[in-house]
Amino acid sequence: MAATTRLFVKLRPLLAGVAVGGSVICCGVYYNKKMTVEARTSGTVAKKFKFMAEPLTDIETLQEGKSMKHRMELYIMNLQGKICKELEDLDFDKKFHVDRWQRDEGGGGISCVLQDGSVFEKAGVNISVVTGNLPPEAAKQMRSRGKKVGDGKLPFFAAGISAVIHPRNPMVPTIHFNYRYFEVEEEDGKVTWWFGGGTDLTPYYLDEEDVTHFHKTLKNACDKHDPTYYEEFKKWCDKYFYIPHRGECRGVGGIFFDDLDKPSQEEAFQFIQSCGNAVLESYTPIVQKHSIDSYGWRQRKWHLLRRGRYVEFNLVYDRGTKFGLYTPGSRTESILMSLPLTARWEYMHEPKEGSKEAELMEVLRNPRDWIRK
Amino acid sequence: MAATTRLFVKLRPLLAGVAVGGSVICCGVYYNKKMTVEARTSGTVAKKFKFMAEPLTDIETLQEGKSMKHRMELYIMNLQGKICKELEDLDFDKKFHVDRWQRDEGGGGISCVLQDGSVFEKAGVNISVVTGNLPPEAAKQMRSRGKKVGDGKLPFFAAGISAVIHPRNPMVPTIHFNYRYFEVEEEDGKVTWWFGGGTDLTPYYLDEEDVTHFHKTLKNACDKHDPTYYEEFKKWCDKYFYIPHRGECRGVGGIFFDDLDKPSQEEAFQFIQSCGNAVLESYTPIVQKHSIDSYGWRQRKWHLLRRGRYVEFNLVYDRGTKFGLYTPGSRTESILMSLPLTARWEYMHEPKEGSKEAELMEVLRNPRDWIRK
Repeated sequence: MAATTRLFVKLRPLLAGVAVGGSVICCGVYYNKKMTVEARTSGTVAKKFKFMAEPLTDIETLQEGKSMKHRMELYIMNLQGKICKELEDLDFDKKFHVDRWQRDEGGGGISCVLQDGSVFEKAGVNISVVTGNLPPEAAKQMRSRGKKVGDGKLPFFAAGISAVIHPRNPMVPTIHFNYRYFEVEEEDGKVTWWFGGGTDLTPYYLDEEDVTHFHKTLKNACDKHDPTYYEEFKKWCDKYFYIPHRGECRGVGGIFFDDLDKPSQEEAFQFIQSCGNAVLESYTPIVQKHSIDSYGWRQRKWHLLRRGRYVEFNLVYDRGTKFGLYTPGSRTESILMSLPLTARWEYMHEPKEGSKEAELMEVLRNPRDWIRK
Repeated sequence: MAATTRLFVKLRPLLAGVAVGGSVICCGVYYNKKMTVEARTSGTVAKKFKFMAEPLTDIETLQEGKSMKHRMELYIMNLQGKICKELEDLDFDKKFHVDRWQRDEGGGGISCVLQDGSVFEKAGVNISVVTGNLPPEAAKQMRSRGKKVGDGKLPFFAAGISAVIHPRNPMVPTIHFNYRYFEVEEEDGKVTWWFGGGTDLTPYYLDEEDVTHFHKTLKNACDKHDPTYYEEFKKWCDKYFYIPHRGECRGVGGIFFDDLDKPSQEEAFQFIQSCGNAVLESYTPIVQKHSIDSYGWRQRKWHLLRRGRYVEFNLVYDRGTKFGLYTPGSRTESILMSLPLTARWEYMHEPKEGSKEAELMEVLRNPRDWIRK
């Protein structure tokens, strides 16, 4: 293990627990009695493999890759490293702050946050790898989603990566993605597993070329695996990221799916990797194109108002956020990492007819197909 | 009726409906097919009585005061006028924007918002006076609170005032209050009624003298009616405005109560009036004392971070807000009027030990008794 500063943190609601991030339960939010938080590691494994910190499972086991648990953990470690590196390169100014923590019950997480940078106002890229027994509340929720989980002791494993990137320039959209693998062992020893995830874009000003590029990249990733995926998961995304009390979507969508357990574990994992690998391709060109676009207070104010809507969605509707916050002992800071650095609420703000702001609202109220069939 | 600009608004989620505001259901959030929004009235009745707009019920009926419905409506009209006038005087710079709206099903509301003033960054003072039939969801919720409401048609009446005042200077606390009267007619014709409400303070920096003055004023209002009220309602307030995922209270409390239906309707109404009348006495001296206090970016940043917590409480836990947002057709703008103009979220922000910011956190984590017994 690398030389790290270890802080044993006493039980208190703010820090005890393990992270969930982004949308939809990644299952890392269960109460625990003690947690270990470490500063950024400069360990040999992290350096060699370009990880953000030492992996939670030893590298030999990960490399052997005998089970999906280990293959998924290795994949998200790699993806986190790659994405953080690219975001740091794009930002020029700031580096990611890394928190690595371990749960006594098993597993842990690595939270990376870049704050107040020159290009990114707040960017968080989390991974969590958690084992434990499913709390009754979580089991109940899973049953409500059609999972055949029993009443007894339910050992589970969850590994996921989730990220929200809020850029500084109002012309650069916010991106969110989340990919996760989950398995639960039932009383008869049978293991149920599934993958879930998605990537979606939240622009503040509409650049149709950008949105089309974004959706095309996701469609290409989907099409390699199943010609029906993109259409199905695009619709699911529009439906999921909808804010009923505003009558609008959070952004211009992308893809979203859950409970994916077919055609085979291997093929589902290949699909997850195609999606994860498409994140930078879908987003980097948009950041490069707009991060030094000109803007004034009007555009910045609109940016902040739209971020208010982002906060509304995440705190009022997002399943992962709600589940996390209602679970005693969850790691609040990792859950709420998804919130923007700044947001604004004005009473009765309505963009002027025919304005650029109204143009955005039109597509948020009436989701469009971005790719011609 | 006064000369008003009438806008007939077509059904859409953003505007259809009637307001709830502040915390706890004031019951004004039911779906309706059409709503009328009017600009600020300069009607003769409003002028004569110093109301913010023409009352929803004609003034002769209100003055006759034959029923509690009319007496409560007249009281909140008066209180809204008085409070808005005082806040405008304190602000010097800006006046309240007034929206008056009526529901086709019965009743309506008057929303007053002062935004971007010199003293107040955002101040909203709403009233709503609503009649209709209780939707099944609301009836269910009431039953869960022990109300004996039936399954059939349940005509109800609700009148309330609610306000949230977010000042600009970080040294001036935010205040929230809400007072409401509710009645519902059961199948056998029996009318069940109750009052609810409260006033609470959210400082960003602790001035013990201010907090003691605030609590003493509320205690005096309570003591006139029942020597046990203050202690009971102070505890209730600390419990209600608690943010579990942060392990802290939203502010330094005040009083909070619901389902008050004793000792008699008349005496409960007298108590509500004492509370409502104490609002300005509890708050104005604090505004006057601190509104031109010096501060820098450190204090302002803390102010914004704490407002982030205000947003978290309101969107994640506040019963009134949640109920409102989940009810199709509610007036979102009136519900979310309680959110600050601006808020901020920083990852892992923790005030320095021994700092003024840490001093505040101490009382938010461990609610204090502000009045020596």
